[in-house]
Amino acid sequence: MTDPSSLPPAADWGQDILERLERLARHSEGGPGVTRRLATPEHRAVHGLLADWMAEAGMTVRQDAAANTCGRYEASEPGAPALMMGSHQDTVRQGGRYDGILGVVVPLACIKVLHDAGERLPFALEVVAFSDEEGLRFGTGLFGSAAVVGRPRIEDLERRDDAGVSLAQALRDFGLDPEALPSAARRPEELHGFVEVHIEQGPVLEAEGLPVGIVTDITHGANMTVTLTGVAGHAGTVPMTRRQDALAGAAEGIQAVEARCRASDRLVGTVGQIAVEPGASNVIPGACRFSVDLRSPDPALLKDAAADLEARLAEIAEARALGLDVERRYKLPGCPCSPWLMDQMEAAVVAEGIAPRRLFSGAGHDAMALREITDIAMLFVRCAGGISHNPAEAITAGDAGTAARVLLRFLRAFDPAGRAAAG
Amino acid sequence: MTDPSSLPPAADWGQDILERLERLARHSEGGPGVTRRLATPEHRAVHGLLADWMAEAGMTVRQDAAANTCGRYEASEPGAPALMMGSHQDTVRQGGRYDGILGVVVPLACIKVLHDAGERLPFALEVVAFSDEEGLRFGTGLFGSAAVVGRPRIEDLERRDDAGVSLAQALRDFGLDPEALPSAARRPEELHGFVEVHIEQGPVLEAEGLPVGIVTDITHGANMTVTLTGVAGHAGTVPMTRRQDALAGAAEGIQAVEARCRASDRLVGTVGQIAVEPGASNVIPGACRFSVDLRSPDPALLKDAAADLEARLAEIAEARALGLDVERRYKLPGCPCSPWLMDQMEAAVVAEGIAPRRLFSGAGHDAMALREITDIAMLFVRCAGGISHNPAEAITAGDAGTAARVLLRFLRAFDPAGRAAAG
Repeated sequence: MTDPSSLPPAADWGQDILERLERLARHSEGGPGVTRRLATPEHRAVHGLLADWMAEAGMTVRQDAAANTCGRYEASEPGAPALMMGSHQDTVRQGGRYDGILGVVVPLACIKVLHDAGERLPFALEVVAFSDEEGLRFGTGLFGSAAVVGRPRIEDLERRDDAGVSLAQALRDFGLDPEALPSAARRPEELHGFVEVHIEQGPVLEAEGLPVGIVTDITHGANMTVTLTGVAGHAGTVPMTRRQDALAGAAEGIQAVEARCRASDRLVGTVGQIAVEPGASNVIPGACRFSVDLRSPDPALLKDAAADLEARLAEIAEARALGLDVERRYKLPGCPCSPWLMDQMEAAVVAEGIAPRRLFSGAGHDAMALREITDIAMLFVRCAGGISHNPAEAITAGDAGTAARVLLRFLRAFDPAGRAAAG
Repeated sequence: MTDPSSLPPAADWGQDILERLERLARHSEGGPGVTRRLATPEHRAVHGLLADWMAEAGMTVRQDAAANTCGRYEASEPGAPALMMGSHQDTVRQGGRYDGILGVVVPLACIKVLHDAGERLPFALEVVAFSDEEGLRFGTGLFGSAAVVGRPRIEDLERRDDAGVSLAQALRDFGLDPEALPSAARRPEELHGFVEVHIEQGPVLEAEGLPVGIVTDITHGANMTVTLTGVAGHAGTVPMTRRQDALAGAAEGIQAVEARCRASDRLVGTVGQIAVEPGASNVIPGACRFSVDLRSPDPALLKDAAADLEARLAEIAEARALGLDVERRYKLPGCPCSPWLMDQMEAAVVAEGIAPRRLFSGAGHDAMALREITDIAMLFVRCAGGISHNPAEAITAGDAGTAARVLLRFLRAFDPAGRAAAG
């Protein structure tokens, strides 16, 4: 048994973490970067690797009905409530090898140290690799964590992927029973809280020379799908003045998204998807559909921006004699992290000799869902250039090891009583 | 035998023509309108129908190595040179039932009248249904007529369709030998000229209350594919000021196409295709590719507009730190119709009691290719609202019948000596 208070050196430990991430990243659908979707052969392979590593760390392993990989490291007193950790195993299309899965591998690395040292804590530790947070395959999002907090997405089971396979069928093909989806729910009294380690996906920590930061709250978001409808026509014969070109209108709309969001540094807006019909180089587009993703830490600002944008789109459609349909797809409500958990995380950061930087998250995370049944905290890890959702996503071994050291300090010092004191 | 100078009444004759077009339109890939591509089951079905109708009209029928359906109504002296007529059997995606194929059905209707009356002319009449003018399946264009004029598109044989099938393989699957493609070539001395009947695809004849018009020349065109390359990133975490969003740049480029072309009423420009990568709603586009189709009857104006646009795109890319690639895909050289043929067509229009309107074509046509080996003329037919490349494409039975009456008058009066006289 090693010294139960020892911490592995950051560089070596981080190297081991990066090697595990590299092994996981090999399970990708092909193309640049990592593409890993819910209930696919790649997901199955990653589940297998994680289950092996969980077992090596002395954990019991199960896959719940939402295809989440769940491991538990028992408390000194069996059956005690748990501190849950984790993040998602899935990726965006052509994403990176750190987004999500880092938040599974780092907790496992900490628990392996505890297990190897024969340490038990007075609370259990659980790690969940959520099956689907990005929602790439079925246009869902937070599918795995929604089931865990008792809001199973029954209404999404009939959604179909690009190949026409329903989510229900995909779960069956994965060996699961979609009818059992509600069984994935956890009860609040089983948990002390939820901690998510995640790459920052933004430029703040790098700019300030810090390896990690403590998240204060998660951004509010609004998504819409905009459809403009004009009249398809021959590209050579319809004078410019008689056109009702849906894509020309969409171009103006995309510029409006950018202009509105540039007006505030607490607002971002993205058009990430666009499609035209009929889609031939010699035909004036008769219809154009595009996505709009707006985010802000300030819900009032977000609401104003969405309203302004809708008004601007209506003006554009009117001026161009185009039909307009705006489908408000969903709102991410955003949420604050729990101060008592932030404080304990900050103590671990300071103990590691790092200036404690608090920052908000511009991205949504599984922690948002967990907030419905327990208190949450997030530890951000610096990433190169702030780049994420991109094959070029990168972190250093040193930062991965530092994050693990901070988390292990946090776990050893964790006091669930902080919650009652805060409450 | 009926009176050899009789002309069927426009309305009844036109009704028969529309019924034939309706039968042809049923051979479509599905979805709204007509989608018929080169060397598909739909193409095979249309070939069969046309071959039957050609045989009924006393013509010999063959399919050449470029999948063109070719019929010949022999001259009073067998083997004499022919006046060729025709247009294309293929369509854009979700196009109409008149674009192209009208120019096959109207000549067949005229020849059937001649055949039923036992009339032979001192020259042969040929009708060709060109296999591929729009180029939808393989991104070609004028594939059928290029082969007929002795410029077989050997270099396009390895192009692949969306399913990965090469053009060479598609021809083989259609029962043809791609190696034999050059055998489709016709010699100039075999032809007196080429006449193409086509819907106007624009608003001029309708605005002036005229059923038909005589084309003076075919527009010049320039096509390019523009690719902007930025940096993909997370939609929530990258501040607006740090983005290199390829789609935001493309939106500005699309607006630039529209603005430049609005500056002249002799210029049109269309962006009909656009694609982004990676194409997820929560990822900033790292790359965007779009088509640009510019057309003008004035080649100098076209050249200036293309140069202005490329300069503007370079400015946009520079200001946004995006990579820019402009692939000039092809230029349609444009071409004038032959005055001696226009004059003879005008005489037929006037004989029908219609004011002779001459107008240019903003669209490219098979006649452009035929111009390389013979003289050409085109007869435009009024279409509803100027709409084409759209399921709503429409003409009246009366106008179809009038076009057939004009063409039959033209054929009976046709004097090949006009060519020599024109020099």
